[in-house]
Amino acid sequence: MFGDISPQYHPLTPETIADYVFSRPELTTVFHAGEALEAEEVGDGNLNLVFKVRAKADAKRTIVFKQAVPYLRLVGDSWPLPTDRARIEAQALEIEARLCPEHTPKVYFYDPDMYLIAMQNLTDHIIMRKGLIKGIKYPLFAKHIGKFMARTLGNTSDLVLDYRTKKLEVARFINPELCKITEDLVFTEPYRRTDRNPYHIELEPQVLALQADEALRVQVAQMKEKFMTQAQALVHGDLHTGSIMINQTETYVIDPEFAFYAPMGFDIGAVIANLFLSYASHEVRLPDPETRADFRAYLLDSIRELWHVFVAEFQPIWAQVDSINMPRGYQEDYMLRLLQDSAGMGACKMMRRIIGLAGVEDIRGIEDVHDRSIAASLALNIAQTLIMQRHDFKTIEEIIEAATACRPTYPWVS
Amino acid sequence: MFGDISPQYHPLTPETIADYVFSRPELTTVFHAGEALEAEEVGDGNLNLVFKVRAKADAKRTIVFKQAVPYLRLVGDSWPLPTDRARIEAQALEIEARLCPEHTPKVYFYDPDMYLIAMQNLTDHIIMRKGLIKGIKYPLFAKHIGKFMARTLGNTSDLVLDYRTKKLEVARFINPELCKITEDLVFTEPYRRTDRNPYHIELEPQVLALQADEALRVQVAQMKEKFMTQAQALVHGDLHTGSIMINQTETYVIDPEFAFYAPMGFDIGAVIANLFLSYASHEVRLPDPETRADFRAYLLDSIRELWHVFVAEFQPIWAQVDSINMPRGYQEDYMLRLLQDSAGMGACKMMRRIIGLAGVEDIRGIEDVHDRSIAASLALNIAQTLIMQRHDFKTIEEIIEAATACRPTYPWVS
Repeated sequence: MFGDISPQYHPLTPETIADYVFSRPELTTVFHAGEALEAEEVGDGNLNLVFKVRAKADAKRTIVFKQAVPYLRLVGDSWPLPTDRARIEAQALEIEARLCPEHTPKVYFYDPDMYLIAMQNLTDHIIMRKGLIKGIKYPLFAKHIGKFMARTLGNTSDLVLDYRTKKLEVARFINPELCKITEDLVFTEPYRRTDRNPYHIELEPQVLALQADEALRVQVAQMKEKFMTQAQALVHGDLHTGSIMINQTETYVIDPEFAFYAPMGFDIGAVIANLFLSYASHEVRLPDPETRADFRAYLLDSIRELWHVFVAEFQPIWAQVDSINMPRGYQEDYMLRLLQDSAGMGACKMMRRIIGLAGVEDIRGIEDVHDRSIAASLALNIAQTLIMQRHDFKTIEEIIEAATACRPTYPWVS
Repeated sequence: MFGDISPQYHPLTPETIADYVFSRPELTTVFHAGEALEAEEVGDGNLNLVFKVRAKADAKRTIVFKQAVPYLRLVGDSWPLPTDRARIEAQALEIEARLCPEHTPKVYFYDPDMYLIAMQNLTDHIIMRKGLIKGIKYPLFAKHIGKFMARTLGNTSDLVLDYRTKKLEVARFINPELCKITEDLVFTEPYRRTDRNPYHIELEPQVLALQADEALRVQVAQMKEKFMTQAQALVHGDLHTGSIMINQTETYVIDPEFAFYAPMGFDIGAVIANLFLSYASHEVRLPDPETRADFRAYLLDSIRELWHVFVAEFQPIWAQVDSINMPRGYQEDYMLRLLQDSAGMGACKMMRRIIGLAGVEDIRGIEDVHDRSIAASLALNIAQTLIMQRHDFKTIEEIIEAATACRPTYPWVS
């Protein structure tokens, strides 16, 4: 995990990647040896180099190369990161492709010496977050993501895997360094004073009140404990709307380098949280009241639908368990706990996006400081409601009702 | 884990063990080369050969050798078991010796080619279960076992270990085959009809009623899920009174071959369950009413005390956690959940001991079938009360009160 760097490893550049491409036998069906290629580095993340390579003669012949670098780019060399995450991502993609190929990019190969994955270039899709910011609806998203989560989560759990496979998979997907990032940035730092919480100063009164709320910190600690101990299923681990490539007909989930065995609610909650963050941003983003109301209704409908699709797609799994030892009452209780976990985990994801190191463009990108603070304040209030009331929620409709009853606290009334 | 058997492996016998003993440099401080030794095989378990070896000239110079055999002795060659459990046991003993040396037998060495552990022969101690059956009190037991559990469980959890060590330890202690035994025998088979539930026929009406109780099976399924998914701490995994060697002043915990990362309540519950099983057995075992009442009061006092010692010994761990992210309210909630987990896990251990494959001598050993059925019936009623009411328990006193309010259902009133 922290072994020596492979002697063959070298970071690729747009200049050197052509030689690498032609050296790989897996790509001879895509590119012709020696032909002219175009390459650009497009990584906007913090962990990796990402190259898009196209044949000059035919832009449709294109591949993405994702190469892990041994440090966190956002922070620099001071935060070393194991290149083992490239293996984790490649193996998670392999499992996702088996369980839900229609929403997983095709992988050409994984190169363990270069910490590199070659995969399908999704040229007709955009990062979902960018679309949501513009107010673009994706009518099939809820159906696609609900199915993706039910298939990938349900089928990697003890409900489906035999006892030995499950336990060996837990060991294979031990992912300490990337888990640590989540433990710190999602479950620890937002709830205390630290230099790494770059929230905008206008929001300070609400952030300080939140950090002073011991009852909230108790609930967050429970979610952190669950994240660190409950090996329920192979989660994507970073399933926000920036990890989804989408258009009107297709949805792809990318970047599972944070994958490990964790509560299913961490993935489900991440999706719901990011839709609620978009909902909060559109308190101020879309200027026309009618467009705004319509788009926010779409977001809430998506939250509702993705949960119902998830439940429906889970039915084949319940149909195959032994109903003596897992009777109907247990199955219902299991799904209810998933719903409540999702509310709690999602809430933590929302709070970190407002208070902590990695904000979301949906809200931090709002230029007007007054508007931005309104959206951020609303997001925090939704999050606090979701985590504090989660044990009371029996349906996704109750979660949506509780969230939509929230209002921004900002501007402060003295 | 299921690799080839080591070429050096051969099962020892009382005749061949002397040569092995003299071949080990670690034992030259105990035995003199070539001296006369006495050896006997005493394994009464199902998984291993156990040899006690003494110097003929001085019986105090003595060592126990525990050798894993690659099948479950109870069932025979048909149930193969990985010899990897000897490694697990040796590594668990090493950790226990570091965290709580006063209650862990000294290990001389682990031989990975012979799947063999050489350790302290506890000549002045007996298996605690045998003592409890005779009505012998162990006044220091509660203090010792409370401390042992707090030290070994608390210090192997995320509360103490750094994020990376904890996760690598989870992987090191993956123990699929022995977990599978527990999953089947504790959490699955007692609650359904199977040939492997050899309960006495007199008890059948109560067993069938229990198996027909869906609400109970829902709760058992929750405990099984928790056992299979919650990597909270390195548990002993089989901490019944047959895994404890004891006398009036000393207590040793032996046989951690089932060790893996699991809920702490699985160990705490096992100890409590076995004291309640003894309590149930003494509904009929001790003939004199006064002796009986006195011994049962001792058992209940031990349950109470071991929990309070556990909580007190946990305090140094809470004192070192960060109280911003793990505030007082979280610490109290954590301990309460441990208590409730212990009630639920202990209940499953009690039920399996009455209904399932591996009974306890305390109750199955009662010769008179009428008396035996009374004790067994009481044990089942205590167990059902503990698991069904566990979310209501706030203190160990409430658990004891609920248990002692139970009566046997047998003999049946038509």
